[in-house]
Amino acid sequence: MKIIKDTTPAEDGFRMPAEYERHHGCIMIFPERADSWQYGGYAARKAFVQIAEAIAASESVTVCAGAGQYDNARALLPDHIRVVEMSSNDAWARDYAPTFVKNDQGQIRGIDWGFNAWGGLVDGLYFPWDKDNQMARKLCDLLGKDVYDKRDFILEGGSIHVDGEGTCMVTECCLLSKGRNPHLSREEIERVLRQYLNVSKILWLPFGIYNDETNGHIDNICAFTAPGEVVLAWTEDEGDVQYAISRACLAYLEGEADAKGRKLKVHKLPLPKPVTITEEECMGLDACGDEPTRRPGERLAASYVNFYIANDRIVMPGFGDPADREAKEILQGLFPDREVVQIYTRDILIGGGNIHCITQQIPDFY
Amino acid sequence: MKIIKDTTPAEDGFRMPAEYERHHGCIMIFPERADSWQYGGYAARKAFVQIAEAIAASESVTVCAGAGQYDNARALLPDHIRVVEMSSNDAWARDYAPTFVKNDQGQIRGIDWGFNAWGGLVDGLYFPWDKDNQMARKLCDLLGKDVYDKRDFILEGGSIHVDGEGTCMVTECCLLSKGRNPHLSREEIERVLRQYLNVSKILWLPFGIYNDETNGHIDNICAFTAPGEVVLAWTEDEGDVQYAISRACLAYLEGEADAKGRKLKVHKLPLPKPVTITEEECMGLDACGDEPTRRPGERLAASYVNFYIANDRIVMPGFGDPADREAKEILQGLFPDREVVQIYTRDILIGGGNIHCITQQIPDFY
Repeated sequence: MKIIKDTTPAEDGFRMPAEYERHHGCIMIFPERADSWQYGGYAARKAFVQIAEAIAASESVTVCAGAGQYDNARALLPDHIRVVEMSSNDAWARDYAPTFVKNDQGQIRGIDWGFNAWGGLVDGLYFPWDKDNQMARKLCDLLGKDVYDKRDFILEGGSIHVDGEGTCMVTECCLLSKGRNPHLSREEIERVLRQYLNVSKILWLPFGIYNDETNGHIDNICAFTAPGEVVLAWTEDEGDVQYAISRACLAYLEGEADAKGRKLKVHKLPLPKPVTITEEECMGLDACGDEPTRRPGERLAASYVNFYIANDRIVMPGFGDPADREAKEILQGLFPDREVVQIYTRDILIGGGNIHCITQQIPDFY
Repeated sequence: MKIIKDTTPAEDGFRMPAEYERHHGCIMIFPERADSWQYGGYAARKAFVQIAEAIAASESVTVCAGAGQYDNARALLPDHIRVVEMSSNDAWARDYAPTFVKNDQGQIRGIDWGFNAWGGLVDGLYFPWDKDNQMARKLCDLLGKDVYDKRDFILEGGSIHVDGEGTCMVTECCLLSKGRNPHLSREEIERVLRQYLNVSKILWLPFGIYNDETNGHIDNICAFTAPGEVVLAWTEDEGDVQYAISRACLAYLEGEADAKGRKLKVHKLPLPKPVTITEEECMGLDACGDEPTRRPGERLAASYVNFYIANDRIVMPGFGDPADREAKEILQGLFPDREVVQIYTRDILIGGGNIHCITQQIPDFY
């Protein structure tokens, strides 16, 4: 594995493919952090296994497990899913597994962004985050792929979405947050995204999902489903604080065009009714430092937008909400060639994310 | 990775190839155990890096490093050597990386023997050994290869040598030791070796190298250099306790034939003059439990037989002894198509082994 410091993907002819382009496979991390996941991680592990199996029906899956969980991961996951030992601070493959870029010859390389647990000492969610920050490099080494060193720029994979045709979508609330790259202007941040993702247009949605503790990752509120088309998390409930947020995002998207000059076609994806954590669920979580991780009644950032596009499948969250079915039908309509599989993910939502957050695709390569 | 419990390699048409058959690559483990290796592993790491580089000039090398040493391993090793995170109790890849077997279609599988630190609670060298014992399986998973579960049989890779044509060579002192499989008779042990290595003849040398704390591994005293040919560690010094040991082994070998009925051609490989550990070197080692790992003046099991056969190279130990040169010339004569590279390995010898002990070949596969 070569660590590349002196050139950027754009200079070298590499670009980030869209998630709906063909994959080599998918990376996940086995959860064990007891202040993120209920019952010492027990509940989340069951859900992660279901998701890994759903994805593995369509593409190869590698699950990274800490030394102490290796045997358990191996026992719970089927033979055809590879388990590799790798330490981490938590289980968010989207945010710290490498962002992969690809060239016209079909070669891939990784990008190793800096990671600081969604805000570092300003408003990060845990400390330390050193093992997470090592993962991109370790995974590139494991795959035998070279890696761009961009650790001086804080970015999580969940805070960017690309259409594969020159457009990147982010949120202002996240990328301009004080805990990430406060020394860089919006224009300087844009410049890094252009150089590393090899895009020519950045779409800046103003907000993410209400109370999303990542400072509002794009991947929980809006996602490309095809070039020129997105789904946007939506509610018709005027009493919900999310109402104004989704409308502001829609207004922004309707006023913008993508890198190819296309007006964006916005598909509204309903949100479930507000999901809050119960007292019993809170009791299943260890404390994080001096304070409880969550408090009873806290609203969780539930959204159907947090789905994963596998080669022949869409793997999407379900919340036991009447909107589960409608959301599934909408995605099935948008992805007619992929089977939509819905998995009940409350135990993952409690950890602070969903299916897209815990997966990272590896583009197909030669 | 499938774990195979119900059949044996022999039943499935797999056999252990000789080390001089073509390799896919080599596995090593980065040393860090401060009671095995001087100065917190610092001295050994430098030697391991030299050896990894020497082998990597001829075949691909993967180095397993614990989480705490990953960054350091990555910094010390060149780009073309892969580093993967993997926990272990120490760094003896020969003894607990998988023994690989291969079929006529060129597929390979691993064997996961039981490992108990060279004698378990009877006369093992450290406790615990649980991480070492997990490695064979983890490495097969990493490579995407199925693995035979033979954890109910204690065996280290350094205690067997095969000629690739039906013969296996072991030592009585090791395989019949009380700390390994005391419930099995010599015939029952032979039966396991026949089934798992797919051999028809076992050669039982009586002894290993004097004071070899592995209970006398074969790979420190005698090795196949070709079908029908071996090198045997040798001394002409009648005052050395090793004198009688080497003669007893020679007498045994001269009275035996291999699986093909060939008389063995025995090449004597001189030993260096007795190597003992100094007081200063002992002070560089942490204590192991209540007692010092080694005592000043203790004789180390130095032997040139502990070389590694890479695809186009022989990587062999040197001790700064006048015999270094003669041993190198003998091996060069026996392997005319491979370049013999000699590396000064006193810092590895202090840990209790040498180049063969810290390497494990992966046979070439399709």
